[in-house]
Amino acid sequence: MVSQRSLTIDTEKTTKTTYVLGTELTVNLNRCAPPLAKFFSIKCTPNVHYKVTPQARGKNAVPYPLTRSSVLIITMDTVSETANDSKLSVRYYGEKTDSLGDALLHLTAVEISLDVDADRDGVVEKNNPNKGSWKWGPKGHGAVLLVNCDSEAAYKKTLDSETDEISKISDLKDMSKMILRTNGPAELPDGYKLTMHISQTTSENMRVFRPRTNAKIDNSFRHQLLKLFLKDYMMVVGKGTLTQEVPYLGGKTELEFFVEGLRFPDKDFNGLITINLSLIEPSSMGFPESPVFTDQVVFHISPWIMTPNTLKPVEVYVCSTKDNYTFLKSIRKLVDKCGYKLKICHEYMNRGDRWMQDELEFGYIDSPHHQFPVVLDSPRDGDLQDFPYESILGPDFGYVTRYASNEEVTSLDSFGNLEVSPPVTVNGKSYPLGRIIIGVAFPTATHGRNMTQVVQDFLWAQKVQEPIALFSDWLVVGHVDEFMTFVPAPDQKKFRLLLASPDAAYKVFRSLEKGGHGDAKMFPDMPEAITVNEILDDKKLLAGNRYVQNCIDWNRDVLKKELGLDEEDIIDLPILFKVIEEKTGPRAVAYYPDMVNMIVLGDQLGIPKPFGPKVNGTCVLETEVCALLEPLGLKCTFIDDFAPYHKLLGEVHCGSNVRREPSPFRWWNMEL
Amino acid sequence: MVSQRSLTIDTEKTTKTTYVLGTELTVNLNRCAPPLAKFFSIKCTPNVHYKVTPQARGKNAVPYPLTRSSVLIITMDTVSETANDSKLSVRYYGEKTDSLGDALLHLTAVEISLDVDADRDGVVEKNNPNKGSWKWGPKGHGAVLLVNCDSEAAYKKTLDSETDEISKISDLKDMSKMILRTNGPAELPDGYKLTMHISQTTSENMRVFRPRTNAKIDNSFRHQLLKLFLKDYMMVVGKGTLTQEVPYLGGKTELEFFVEGLRFPDKDFNGLITINLSLIEPSSMGFPESPVFTDQVVFHISPWIMTPNTLKPVEVYVCSTKDNYTFLKSIRKLVDKCGYKLKICHEYMNRGDRWMQDELEFGYIDSPHHQFPVVLDSPRDGDLQDFPYESILGPDFGYVTRYASNEEVTSLDSFGNLEVSPPVTVNGKSYPLGRIIIGVAFPTATHGRNMTQVVQDFLWAQKVQEPIALFSDWLVVGHVDEFMTFVPAPDQKKFRLLLASPDAAYKVFRSLEKGGHGDAKMFPDMPEAITVNEILDDKKLLAGNRYVQNCIDWNRDVLKKELGLDEEDIIDLPILFKVIEEKTGPRAVAYYPDMVNMIVLGDQLGIPKPFGPKVNGTCVLETEVCALLEPLGLKCTFIDDFAPYHKLLGEVHCGSNVRREPSPFRWWNMEL
Repeated sequence: MVSQRSLTIDTEKTTKTTYVLGTELTVNLNRCAPPLAKFFSIKCTPNVHYKVTPQARGKNAVPYPLTRSSVLIITMDTVSETANDSKLSVRYYGEKTDSLGDALLHLTAVEISLDVDADRDGVVEKNNPNKGSWKWGPKGHGAVLLVNCDSEAAYKKTLDSETDEISKISDLKDMSKMILRTNGPAELPDGYKLTMHISQTTSENMRVFRPRTNAKIDNSFRHQLLKLFLKDYMMVVGKGTLTQEVPYLGGKTELEFFVEGLRFPDKDFNGLITINLSLIEPSSMGFPESPVFTDQVVFHISPWIMTPNTLKPVEVYVCSTKDNYTFLKSIRKLVDKCGYKLKICHEYMNRGDRWMQDELEFGYIDSPHHQFPVVLDSPRDGDLQDFPYESILGPDFGYVTRYASNEEVTSLDSFGNLEVSPPVTVNGKSYPLGRIIIGVAFPTATHGRNMTQVVQDFLWAQKVQEPIALFSDWLVVGHVDEFMTFVPAPDQKKFRLLLASPDAAYKVFRSLEKGGHGDAKMFPDMPEAITVNEILDDKKLLAGNRYVQNCIDWNRDVLKKELGLDEEDIIDLPILFKVIEEKTGPRAVAYYPDMVNMIVLGDQLGIPKPFGPKVNGTCVLETEVCALLEPLGLKCTFIDDFAPYHKLLGEVHCGSNVRREPSPFRWWNMEL
Repeated sequence: MVSQRSLTIDTEKTTKTTYVLGTELTVNLNRCAPPLAKFFSIKCTPNVHYKVTPQARGKNAVPYPLTRSSVLIITMDTVSETANDSKLSVRYYGEKTDSLGDALLHLTAVEISLDVDADRDGVVEKNNPNKGSWKWGPKGHGAVLLVNCDSEAAYKKTLDSETDEISKISDLKDMSKMILRTNGPAELPDGYKLTMHISQTTSENMRVFRPRTNAKIDNSFRHQLLKLFLKDYMMVVGKGTLTQEVPYLGGKTELEFFVEGLRFPDKDFNGLITINLSLIEPSSMGFPESPVFTDQVVFHISPWIMTPNTLKPVEVYVCSTKDNYTFLKSIRKLVDKCGYKLKICHEYMNRGDRWMQDELEFGYIDSPHHQFPVVLDSPRDGDLQDFPYESILGPDFGYVTRYASNEEVTSLDSFGNLEVSPPVTVNGKSYPLGRIIIGVAFPTATHGRNMTQVVQDFLWAQKVQEPIALFSDWLVVGHVDEFMTFVPAPDQKKFRLLLASPDAAYKVFRSLEKGGHGDAKMFPDMPEAITVNEILDDKKLLAGNRYVQNCIDWNRDVLKKELGLDEEDIIDLPILFKVIEEKTGPRAVAYYPDMVNMIVLGDQLGIPKPFGPKVNGTCVLETEVCALLEPLGLKCTFIDDFAPYHKLLGEVHCGSNVRREPSPFRWWNMEL
């Protein structure tokens, strides 16, 4: 809809105003007319166009009859060379001949457009008609903003979003460009000015910078300026400054702004941000000025996005501890073979906390012009707690965390309990970035551990990977990665869900017994050694595993429903648990190394070595797992994590973390 | 999608479970099979149905070949008479003839449905397939909940939502009925139970009650129970109780629940509420129980809805003060003529605060089963502050307020600054309940008064009357009702927007002058008397009114755009303002009684008497206003509010309030 502005004109005084191309000025002629006026006629300079409504009946019905609802609509299609160079006058008549007076209007036409990359192609186009709203999907529109949550400084770090200055030129690329395009006379008429303004709420979520210099944009000159005078960037609007004048440079010019996101979407913030630019008209006689034209642009803050196992790895993170030399060597060998980077967190930083999976989750943020990884720091805060901020945050590596205020932080807040599925389609609804998976207590439980509400609220608010809550409180440690993972596959849905299965394990052990290998030993040559027969005879173990299978099956049903999986998309890995009587009730831990707790690096799997019974010198559990996974083109490497991880109730996955490439699917193309 | 549950069966032990009609039990046969099993066959009692996937090739391929992905899917279509009365067994074979064992399954079939009025017809239908989700619109679905914000007690009042007991039987009608329908054997199998459960967040927004007695519903008996034993209602779930067992009564029974809303939608609450009911299965050997079936219902809390001037009045509220006897008499006469109720707030309560419009706003909440008015109490808190709670809150009259915490409360928080338009359609988008209108400072202003954010957040969160923010800070008092109102009309959009217009006023005065009445006196026979010529000669007054006309025109443009109005939908009333130099700048007040600040009672308008210049004994301002409004079928009564209101910077509308009938349009039928 064309923006209209009401204007009063007056036979006693020339009215001067500034007109913005693309709008309409409307004059209620009756209201402004001198008493007894019955007709009117109009004259104007050639660059001024007008129409009169209601349309007079005759074609040349000039002078026009003045009615109660006579409205004059004025437009112009070229900008003014000088202030007030365009004119229009209305002459009023009582009866056809006698003039009752002329109302004069002097006009200055300018072009004003606050522009963003509303079509999401990385370029700030001119005056996109959709720039003022957000629409999801490939046919959608609306500009994208990043939370500037990295740190341009690698030392003496602080989140860039926490300082309202631009510390380095490189910081500008984390921001979204916004351009004010104006065209008109060298100067605006006296007293007119341009103002950028935002709401109080918006000021908590973003800020806008611009070069302090008013120089017109000349690419080479500007480039030098940027490099030389860093402090020459100023905040235009943001916290404490909701409105500020911006320069009108005259002629046809572009003024660049840089928009910086400050907050991720959350329970009380849907991620949408509006910035306004107004032309302010002065008022005579000391009355307040008023906005006569407002242009509006909308941004959506990029959500924080997780990366499923099916995406290509970039870096593998693992801790070095006093006791994990052999494990580390195996991991290094696997990672080297795959050609990825290995990053080791040394003891001075990890202070013996080896659970690299639990302290942090890697994700990323994405915009058409820029993307970078962002680490989500868990409120778990073990001895690894400084690692994400101290060692990961840096230039183009962002950081975000959530603090539990009145809630108890439990083991379920560790990010072994935060995973994401590969892309799925569920009952026709597409999740091209997959769905987040967390573990909580049964909703029907009166007691029970949960993931803190602040983290849950954060995850749900990102919207593009709608979370699924599984039941993981049946485990001592309570992480979903203790009973499930995803591996890539060449067929079907392009992945398989792997689930730990005591039933599948018992089937292997019973087959061994039936095959005459009942005396074969689990944990061969280890102090824990125990025969297959002994395991099968352990009624308590069996009962516990029946319970565990029930718990996992409950999750299986939820995953099938929420990810749209068929039975063929699921593989049961033979894993036994044992149930321990804790103060708050019985809970389970893996009986032998929990093979589902693996690291997935493309088609290479680093699987906890199960130390299962051997037949003909080979471990039947390894054989079974290989038989299940190798047909999918996956390569299984079994890694001994027994002493430094398994005995401490974790495995390979718990002790590692993988940063992966962002999805090729861009989040704004989701249909929400 | 049919709800599926994975089940493990076992050749070593009979499995017993309870099946819920409408679901599917799935058994992964391979995982449960004995080692070396190659085939299987199935037998079952007649009420049990099954299918096997993948389907065996031959038609009578029994025994079925056992494959890695063999799944048995079990359903039943009638409920059990007694526990475990239905049976199924799977026999496994190695080669075709030799049995490896039978896995036995004993089944108890029950029917469970947690029901709500998801089709919004006032009746709780059985197992509506859409009961678990919310959809706006006439073809939408989802049950409706009221915030129980009235007080069943008229004395010693407290909001019903603030007590977790049911104080009177009449309180039940403010709640939404929810019925648990079950059918099955007289008792559930040992250890099974039904549990209702909600999330932590939901527990802050609603609670559920039920009769304490477990008696089956027998209408006459129940009715007596309800009347006799009030304390026989207990809270099932709510704050502090997220989960609680509910009785299974056996046979075909219905158990009634009453759901009570506690909080209106707000910035951090979208109004949606989920309640779950689960069937809990016991676990043997001291392991925790687990939910095996969950039914879910969704409610949407009714928003607080305002009533535009075009709705039929019910009651008129006005204050009695030491000095307003004549005014009160005029109002009573007008209200009596219309046949509405007049409610007078006496001095002991109003303590001299006469601004009945400003302390409160009447609205209502609505559900298919019940609706009642709700007063929104302003954070203004003048001497009238106790009136809404003390005098209005009561049985079937609700109360809601918002407290400003860190914000300054200004005159713009008075509810003369909170209005609502009649129904409009804007660019194809329909607002059948109209749009809320508030006044704030210019968004470009560096200083300026605003409506507190808590109230704005509340208004926006109601969603069904999307607010419009106008510019009202140009006025000393700063209320939108000082320059605009809506009146009903028989044609066009069924209403007109009336705007105060200095231009229109000057036109009247200039016509007087031209007609030879320049000596006629404004405020005739009053100390303030002043001639038309003197008014027209006052350049300062003229300049101030030019500024005022600009301010109103700015709002006119916003209203035209946001309400989809044409010029023909707007009527300019001849009203002059004068601009006063305040500490924070110039601001305007009405020069003579502000006729737009009227009370609208159907086609009867109570308009501030302007005391304009007289020609032939009649006031030209009254004549002009009548000429503008009477053609619409409206009747103008001019009420003298000069001394007790106008001189204190308010008029008829500021000093009154009207409670109106709810809109016939139901809010859930909006397309959002």
